[in-house]
Amino acid sequence: MNIQPTTQRVVIEDVQPVVDAGRFPVKCVTGDRIDVEADVFADGHDVVTAVLEHRPGRTTKWTTVPMSPMVNDRWAASFTPEAMGRHLFRIVGWMDAFATWQHGLDKKAEAGLDLDVEFQIGHALVKAASRRAKGIDRALLDEFAQTISDTELTREERVEAGLDDRLTQTMARWPDRSSATTSNVFAVFADRERARFSAWYELFPRSWGPDGSHGTLSDVVDNIDYVADMGFDVLYLPPVSPIGHTKRKGPNNTLDAGPDDPGVPWAVGSADGGHTAVNPALGSIDDLRRLRDAAIERNMELALDIALQCSPDHPWVTEHPEWFRSRPDGSIQYAENPPKRYEDIYPIDFETSDPAGLWTGLKGVFDHWIAEGIRIFRVDNPHTKSFPFWEWLITSIHEEHPDIIFLAEAFTRPRVMHRLAKAGFNQSYTYFTWRNTAWELKTYMDDLARTATFMRPNFWPNTPDILPTYLQSDGRAGFIVRLVLAATLSSNYGIYGPSYELLDNLPKTPGTEEYLDSEKYQIRSWDLAADHSLAPLITILNRIRREHPALQHTHNVWFTHSDNEMILCYVKQWDDDVVVCVVNLDPHHQQSGWIEIPIDALGIGEHQSYQVHDALTDRRYIWGGRHNYVELSPDGIPVHVFVLRRHVRTEHDFDYYL
Amino acid sequence: MNIQPTTQRVVIEDVQPVVDAGRFPVKCVTGDRIDVEADVFADGHDVVTAVLEHRPGRTTKWTTVPMSPMVNDRWAASFTPEAMGRHLFRIVGWMDAFATWQHGLDKKAEAGLDLDVEFQIGHALVKAASRRAKGIDRALLDEFAQTISDTELTREERVEAGLDDRLTQTMARWPDRSSATTSNVFAVFADRERARFSAWYELFPRSWGPDGSHGTLSDVVDNIDYVADMGFDVLYLPPVSPIGHTKRKGPNNTLDAGPDDPGVPWAVGSADGGHTAVNPALGSIDDLRRLRDAAIERNMELALDIALQCSPDHPWVTEHPEWFRSRPDGSIQYAENPPKRYEDIYPIDFETSDPAGLWTGLKGVFDHWIAEGIRIFRVDNPHTKSFPFWEWLITSIHEEHPDIIFLAEAFTRPRVMHRLAKAGFNQSYTYFTWRNTAWELKTYMDDLARTATFMRPNFWPNTPDILPTYLQSDGRAGFIVRLVLAATLSSNYGIYGPSYELLDNLPKTPGTEEYLDSEKYQIRSWDLAADHSLAPLITILNRIRREHPALQHTHNVWFTHSDNEMILCYVKQWDDDVVVCVVNLDPHHQQSGWIEIPIDALGIGEHQSYQVHDALTDRRYIWGGRHNYVELSPDGIPVHVFVLRRHVRTEHDFDYYL
Repeated sequence: MNIQPTTQRVVIEDVQPVVDAGRFPVKCVTGDRIDVEADVFADGHDVVTAVLEHRPGRTTKWTTVPMSPMVNDRWAASFTPEAMGRHLFRIVGWMDAFATWQHGLDKKAEAGLDLDVEFQIGHALVKAASRRAKGIDRALLDEFAQTISDTELTREERVEAGLDDRLTQTMARWPDRSSATTSNVFAVFADRERARFSAWYELFPRSWGPDGSHGTLSDVVDNIDYVADMGFDVLYLPPVSPIGHTKRKGPNNTLDAGPDDPGVPWAVGSADGGHTAVNPALGSIDDLRRLRDAAIERNMELALDIALQCSPDHPWVTEHPEWFRSRPDGSIQYAENPPKRYEDIYPIDFETSDPAGLWTGLKGVFDHWIAEGIRIFRVDNPHTKSFPFWEWLITSIHEEHPDIIFLAEAFTRPRVMHRLAKAGFNQSYTYFTWRNTAWELKTYMDDLARTATFMRPNFWPNTPDILPTYLQSDGRAGFIVRLVLAATLSSNYGIYGPSYELLDNLPKTPGTEEYLDSEKYQIRSWDLAADHSLAPLITILNRIRREHPALQHTHNVWFTHSDNEMILCYVKQWDDDVVVCVVNLDPHHQQSGWIEIPIDALGIGEHQSYQVHDALTDRRYIWGGRHNYVELSPDGIPVHVFVLRRHVRTEHDFDYYL
Repeated sequence: MNIQPTTQRVVIEDVQPVVDAGRFPVKCVTGDRIDVEADVFADGHDVVTAVLEHRPGRTTKWTTVPMSPMVNDRWAASFTPEAMGRHLFRIVGWMDAFATWQHGLDKKAEAGLDLDVEFQIGHALVKAASRRAKGIDRALLDEFAQTISDTELTREERVEAGLDDRLTQTMARWPDRSSATTSNVFAVFADRERARFSAWYELFPRSWGPDGSHGTLSDVVDNIDYVADMGFDVLYLPPVSPIGHTKRKGPNNTLDAGPDDPGVPWAVGSADGGHTAVNPALGSIDDLRRLRDAAIERNMELALDIALQCSPDHPWVTEHPEWFRSRPDGSIQYAENPPKRYEDIYPIDFETSDPAGLWTGLKGVFDHWIAEGIRIFRVDNPHTKSFPFWEWLITSIHEEHPDIIFLAEAFTRPRVMHRLAKAGFNQSYTYFTWRNTAWELKTYMDDLARTATFMRPNFWPNTPDILPTYLQSDGRAGFIVRLVLAATLSSNYGIYGPSYELLDNLPKTPGTEEYLDSEKYQIRSWDLAADHSLAPLITILNRIRREHPALQHTHNVWFTHSDNEMILCYVKQWDDDVVVCVVNLDPHHQQSGWIEIPIDALGIGEHQSYQVHDALTDRRYIWGGRHNYVELSPDGIPVHVFVLRRHVRTEHDFDYYL
């Protein structure tokens, strides 16, 4: 029983937005308006006042915003984090004796009641505020107190003074908060915009060498315009660190690698160094710096892949044996999923005898690359490292570098993926990769909306680990459909290329999602200039995304009715910008049907026409009303990405489209 | 940043049931099974174990219950508070290295892999547990450790030992919890059953005197069988304390009371004493004790009304002027709702300079009556006293007297009513009083279900303050409808009588809900033997409630389809007990229609007949199928309270009804 007698009367409940009752910060982007709400109320009928207080996490001074009452004791106010990083907010409520007095004075004056005592009470309240006030406010309050209690004046004059707006405003500046109630403090984390809006391109540098030779970071620099011209924001490389030799894997995941096999980049570490070294086969740290700068020059950023696991040859294995689990025979525990064993990988043991040393050591990897100007990390399999570690790591790094973006590569159970996002990952891989039908896509977008306060999806139609069955069998149309869905449903998306744009669709064996001749194990060579390449379409798509704010957000999606289950229609709106996507989910047959445009919500009259401009094909249609006919064939572009323009009549009676 | 490096890997999220993330206890009744759930999981693929720990609040030793995994990392376990009062629970999860080892051993043995190191690991795990274990468990573990590592035995024998059920169970008794994660501690408050199932009867003793004289507590004793025979559990009296004389109200709330006017019981306190005294006009404390005992002899309890406000004549006004708000002219602030003033009432000032003294003083009122054997309090207008006070008061009293039931008489805004319930009130008045149509009743029952973890509704079709318009105009049928709705929808209900059963329906003025010649201000005399009295019907209704567990719960209501909006049909089920209520909500016209019986959910075949027995009228019908016809007239009993009996065939082929 920890309640002590108090004169606090206000209670504060159900503050929103919060994650897990405030256990984790809410995510936003700088400049986003945070709409805060809470139930604030007290016993009885006296007037309550509530304010929102907020501040950047590094400062100590709260900024105060008055809250407005809505219905049912709900109050609202907003604030906009302008700086990156952690922001804090809380709610304070108290009994507003002066407002209560004003309310009573007004009613009693109207009813013609005696006001002598009322004036004395009001005088005392204003004088008390004057003692709290400073400067001109104090003088003004003293003046009003004097007027209210001035028996030489008429009753009407004194009432008028008591209800004067200037008095009301000045009193509000010097409230009596001695019995105020303060809520818990809640946190918001403000990212930079790229956390919310980004297009990723993943490539294996080793496949970018001339004539099938082992490619290098310099080769990527030489070819960087290929990626930049497609309009990607993030150039993401698998681990660039030295690759282990012990138990190295050969092509197609075989166990007998030859001397020339390049190995798996995720088997990190060799005599050449560990997580902070550059694989000599790829070049030097200077090459990496050049690539970093070449990306920046093209409005891209270089993202590195951090896989916190070691090959048996990693320096840590001898330097920090306590970071691994040792077996009774003196060997180190390799990765396994019994009875399968992955002897080229030693997992980190988070049950180590030295958690502080381990955590600090692992953080050193990120610190190293941050010092090298890397601002985006794709983290490999974060769900096999402890959650408290990630929360500590990301929070620590964000305290100093709030601009760092961590993408969680976890394809696992929902609660685990949610927890990683709550722990601080700025973006998360998703189940989009396996959501194909209209029902699957709609329900999945609903699922994601429910976790929007803490988890930012990043949609990938493929990855080096995953060639979805849809892509294996559905040809060029299938690749276009999945690309457009990813790039328009989610403001963050990425592809693993050039595999994707070149329609690479052969699985290692039927029924698996592993690529045949996967780049994970070997060098591939890609014909970037192939006629069938989707690069031109991707270029247009990324341009549309940059031009349309509606596509720079994710949870503004609105699925509308389609009378053909194979045709998915959704509207995305942001301010005046309206994009309507229509997708034929059937990559084998032409499909047609009637789709709904929510003209009422868009402010279009029932008998008013509007233009839909397919930004992919540059075709324009004049539509009218709620229902319009579409026909999409897998032989061409089986999708529409329509920009909707309202038809307006000018003062000179010329028609044009906004 | 308060995360420190740790070897904890398990996380625990979303524990249920909780109220406001654990800020308030969940309500239940002793013997209720509490189904606890939580998300419990860790990084990686090692096996996690979770347990529920619970204990009565007064003890320190936790009882441990293993949790079972369900889907999506959700775990479940239950416990049943047997004692009244506060119970605590929490969840503990940890990595189960031994179960992980067993899983691997099984798979590797099956795959024919070398097991030497596995046996060594298993031996070490079992020996470590043996060091934690005691007595026979230790010996057993040593034996198993020896067998697992015994190279003289066959591989199969050693594997079998490692997977032996007895070893599994014994290991589970001595887990390594050194890196366990423990959730917050959550509270449950277990009431006695009457908090969940009760029928209240409110009466003004002053109207129970012979021949219109001022009635006394002794008169109530003399007539107590009238109430007891109707089958009520709780006999509830308005405040029995002395009534103030200053500004005393006369009949129909007039301001000029005569010397013989008895005053308003809620204007508490006079020279005869305050909240702990008995109004001499009603008798003595001994009379009250006799009434208390007479009630108990008849399986009823006496409930007192505590109104924490004072008449100007209350001893506290002079003894504790700091408990009231003083005005600049030296007077004490009376109650007001500007411009209306209620000068017979001084509200308590919870912004007093001495909150500790005030709270302790107010608690003294409850302590006094508890010492007099009172176990149920109806608290008048709790929403005009501070919420922290109620939470402190009720929690303090429940710590010593967990059997005390507090009913919150708050008809106010939803959040305020919810907060009072969260603060500890065991029962709450509701908006039922104004919910008349089928839609209103259905949505209101849904609303109440959403707050079922903390708020227990008590349905009142009338109170001395409220004669709903429905009752003013709708005659005997209206009174029956509202009575049956209250008594069957909610397991707690009450009426203000004899006004109710005698169909007292005259408002003070048209359009108000105030009774004409309200007993709040004057003595009434009631013809208890009147032919039109509903007492016989109430007697049957209360008997049905006692006989049918389905009516002893509230949130088991299931509204079923009716093709006539004026006919409301709902099913209540508890174990084998099924009650079907059919109510003609139109008190002026006969209504008929087809109502749905959810035979599938009730385990009745489509072509199987069943009996519905109207327990109010003792009429029986044989029904079949989902849809059945009903016809209800306001001239008779416009409701059915059916007991549904399934038709079964015995082994001797006789039909009978369960």
